[in-house]
Amino acid sequence: MTSLRVLGVDPGLTRCGVGVVDVARDRSAALVHVGVVRSAVDLPIERRLATIAAGLRAVIAEHRPHVVAVERVFAQHNRTSVMGTAQASGIALLVAAESGLDAATHTPSEVKAAITGYGSAEKLQVQTMVARVLRLDSLPQPADAADALALAICHAWRRGPGGTGTGTGAAALTPAQRAWADAERLSRR
Amino acid sequence: MTSLRVLGVDPGLTRCGVGVVDVARDRSAALVHVGVVRSAVDLPIERRLATIAAGLRAVIAEHRPHVVAVERVFAQHNRTSVMGTAQASGIALLVAAESGLDAATHTPSEVKAAITGYGSAEKLQVQTMVARVLRLDSLPQPADAADALALAICHAWRRGPGGTGTGTGAAALTPAQRAWADAERLSRR
Repeated sequence: MTSLRVLGVDPGLTRCGVGVVDVARDRSAALVHVGVVRSAVDLPIERRLATIAAGLRAVIAEHRPHVVAVERVFAQHNRTSVMGTAQASGIALLVAAESGLDAATHTPSEVKAAITGYGSAEKLQVQTMVARVLRLDSLPQPADAADALALAICHAWRRGPGGTGTGTGAAALTPAQRAWADAERLSRR
Repeated sequence: MTSLRVLGVDPGLTRCGVGVVDVARDRSAALVHVGVVRSAVDLPIERRLATIAAGLRAVIAEHRPHVVAVERVFAQHNRTSVMGTAQASGIALLVAAESGLDAATHTPSEVKAAITGYGSAEKLQVQTMVARVLRLDSLPQPADAADALALAICHAWRRGPGGTGTGTGAAALTPAQRAWADAERLSRR
């Protein structure tokens, strides 16, 4: 069965959550990889960002996603860390582009709404639904990587072609739909 | 005469100011390069960041600075653009690290204070002083790249060894001082 492989990135300077899922056209999803890319707090900022870039490139090289979904960062978040988070999100987007992949950003409430049906859902509810969607026996670990998985699932569900079949003209496709269609074409070869 | 070559980056998504200066131990400074790296507003964000990364890498490859100084971005700035500015600053820091260069950040008021003696100086005053320091016949053009030059001069003046000579142990040197000392060593070969 053809599926879209999405890398979700929950950007952070100290811990950057990464989750890779395969999402089929019927919206069923399977866990491929989950983890955290860390950078040491005592490194200079430019070395921390390079560590994160290297970690994300390694995940892309190993798991070869079709598209990268990054959580959108807002200025009204915790002020002391928001700039580092924004910089990490920029790194994730750059690494996607330099790997030849399309990228997309989704807000936390878009992710919550996609996964739980409720844009203000609590963290545990999101984690519980991620585990259910991926048919895991327990909550995804580490817990802060569950957001990256939720983001990846959200991206496929929001941007995927759904039940529209393959009749849509290529020009009308979103980048994710194109990736999906490409993956499908490849699987038919 | 030995000098420290600094690349100053005034981060921005649409216009990213870059300025390269050579600053001698007696604090005199010379213009090497000034310009703006642009990215098209209609490109997806990941492509814009990749365009900026490529532009910064080209400046580093051509002018081979010893160190990169990036303006520090704050969350309280204009909210609609601050996230893009923060992402661009992250790209500049990453490109520095991946080019094997140390990087540093300075706040706008640190830059103004270093260049004009007054942390709340107006833009025109900073531009005027940058032109005077670099012995230019007119204000640096484009105007928004003057900040990148000011940043580069500020970095060398704040972090440089000043009049302390070479007696300082290497362990006590800041990254910029090390770069300066390295440049000096190279010039003596």
